[in-house]
Amino acid sequence: MKLAVIAGDGIGPEVVDEALAVLRAVVPDVETTDYDLGARRYLRNGELLTDADLESLREHDAILLGAIGDPRTVPSGVLERGLLLKMRFALDHHVNLRPSKRYDGVTSPLAGNPEIDFVVVREGTEGPYTGNGGALRIGTPHEVATEVSVNTRYGVERVVRNAFQRASARRKKLTLVHKTNVLTFAGSLWQRTVDEVAPEFPDVTTDYCHVDAATIYLVTDPGRFDVIVTDNLFGDIITDIAAAIGGGIGLAASGNIDATGTNPSMFEPVHGSAPDIAGQNKADPTATILSTAMLLRHLGKTVEAGRVEAAVVADLAERGDAARSTTEVGESIRARL
Amino acid sequence: MKLAVIAGDGIGPEVVDEALAVLRAVVPDVETTDYDLGARRYLRNGELLTDADLESLREHDAILLGAIGDPRTVPSGVLERGLLLKMRFALDHHVNLRPSKRYDGVTSPLAGNPEIDFVVVREGTEGPYTGNGGALRIGTPHEVATEVSVNTRYGVERVVRNAFQRASARRKKLTLVHKTNVLTFAGSLWQRTVDEVAPEFPDVTTDYCHVDAATIYLVTDPGRFDVIVTDNLFGDIITDIAAAIGGGIGLAASGNIDATGTNPSMFEPVHGSAPDIAGQNKADPTATILSTAMLLRHLGKTVEAGRVEAAVVADLAERGDAARSTTEVGESIRARL
Ligand SMILES: CC(C)[C@H](C(=O)O)[C@@H](O)C(=O)O
Ligand SMILES: CC(C)[C@H](C(=O)O)[C@@H](O)C(=O)O
Repeated sequence: MKLAVIAGDGIGPEVVDEALAVLRAVVPDVETTDYDLGARRYLRNGELLTDADLESLREHDAILLGAIGDPRTVPSGVLERGLLLKMRFALDHHVNLRPSKRYDGVTSPLAGNPEIDFVVVREGTEGPYTGNGGALRIGTPHEVATEVSVNTRYGVERVVRNAFQRASARRKKLTLVHKTNVLTFAGSLWQRTVDEVAPEFPDVTTDYCHVDAATIYLVTDPGRFDVIVTDNLFGDIITDIAAAIGGGIGLAASGNIDATGTNPSMFEPVHGSAPDIAGQNKADPTATILSTAMLLRHLGKTVEAGRVEAAVVADLAERGDAARSTTEVGESIRARL
Repeated sequence: MKLAVIAGDGIGPEVVDEALAVLRAVVPDVETTDYDLGARRYLRNGELLTDADLESLREHDAILLGAIGDPRTVPSGVLERGLLLKMRFALDHHVNLRPSKRYDGVTSPLAGNPEIDFVVVREGTEGPYTGNGGALRIGTPHEVATEVSVNTRYGVERVVRNAFQRASARRKKLTLVHKTNVLTFAGSLWQRTVDEVAPEFPDVTTDYCHVDAATIYLVTDPGRFDVIVTDNLFGDIITDIAAAIGGGIGLAASGNIDATGTNPSMFEPVHGSAPDIAGQNKADPTATILSTAMLLRHLGKTVEAGRVEAAVVADLAERGDAARSTTEVGESIRARL
């Protein structure tokens, strides 16, 4: 297995270290290439993600990423647009997969500690994330700034079909989340696409939620969801709520997947670089370890993925709510493999 | 006081009836004009909101609205774009004011039943709500649909200044919620505007939250917020979470305000028309009654607004979590005036 590793900024290197140690424990023959990408390199030489980086990344089976960003030294948007999103777009990561699960031993901030087990399939290469838009008369009283959400049938259909496949392999319920009553052009495309793909999956029931109503359900009745399919921005928002109700962003894993397999997929925790706690052995590596399990599953290493997940489940069941150091969590998970 | 009343669809007429009875109890000389706007009229003659309607609405001091929409008979978007949003835009309702408060006697779905008391100032006339955008090759595999978020310095500045004023009169903290790291054109405009207006309000501390992170805080630490200022779409989403954590959409009031006073402002519950429970005397009228209190306050009737709010507070303190009928709640509130 040839793995590209982007440890990144802040707590990135710490959580990636633990995840790699877990990975090596179940797949001894993994060959890793470290990439110096993120704030440090940008501040050193102004480079974000070069063509050469991309070419080299493409030679790997998958990418593991820790976290990117340092809001104290790099202006907001530079690393996000120039590196993180550039990579998702260049490698055609159209399926941004974000499972939400409340594990035994973990307490949700929701009263009654409800069971939570759903998956968000977030579109990853379109929507308001394309960078389309612009500004004129910047800095004057007449400034106008636009952001354009671009949605194509091609882009929507492939992620909708992927979501149906996942629903079919789960509890067979697919919920489209959008804002069709306001964003009527894009909303209509999304709704029609779901309606037209649905007959291919007669075992899957579909329903629809406006994004605002979906956030209410996430807080009051998260059990109603099985698979959610949604656009890039709505997906960004609701997966953070999903992480929060599931017991915290420290546990939320994600995959940025090119479902065609043409490009390597990228796996990363949902959380950011958390510079305030970087270098203090405080960050929870569980999200990165669970992302590594997703990576293994994506590469067909189902048994190994299952072993990692089982070790995480066992660790959380015993000490899920305890404050522990990064290395403590990593060691506890490895001890259970 | 000349009041335009749009009872609307579904549960709208029921909750408006209770709110008007409360209003008349504190302001006997209110003169109301009923407007037949919503699904019924649209289905009857295809009319949504005519120029004559708008002209006549403009002759009133304020507008009270129940709910608009009937998803069973009118396609999604028709009434929203053609009536509700048209009215907000035509009457320049740029300050969409949505307080969130957990009242004593009301249980939040959040564990520990935290105190919640903040206000969202949602921009109401720009952003992704403008209807800009379009679609081409509709219904083909090559369909492209766009939605354009339009943001102007003029539009952002006036709502930001309004939010600063409100923060200055409250706990003196203003949080900008946006997604500046991805929506860099609009995000930069919003952030610069906040930074440039801030010196006018030296007593107010400002901070910033990405919208995704804001949703996490709303679930895990809602006490961190005092006044939030945000764009039209982010405001739509986070005010539904705010309503949910505050004890439910049945309590969430809102004002659509033209802060210049040129046009009548419009007050409405955040909830929709809920056709599934319409006509059953089941809907909670509290949100509409609290919206009426906002209306009174907006028209300078501070004492009367305070009386209504105090009656609601007393009612909720005693029976906030009980399942009650629409009329029961209305009567209980009136009995406490
Ligand atoms: C860092 C940012 C660009 C990113 C996003 O908005 O997608 C993050 O919030 C995420 O969810 O992975
Ligand atoms: C009905 C809809 C157009 C409206 C909105 O999106 O603004 C509603 O959700 C609201 O929050 O008032």
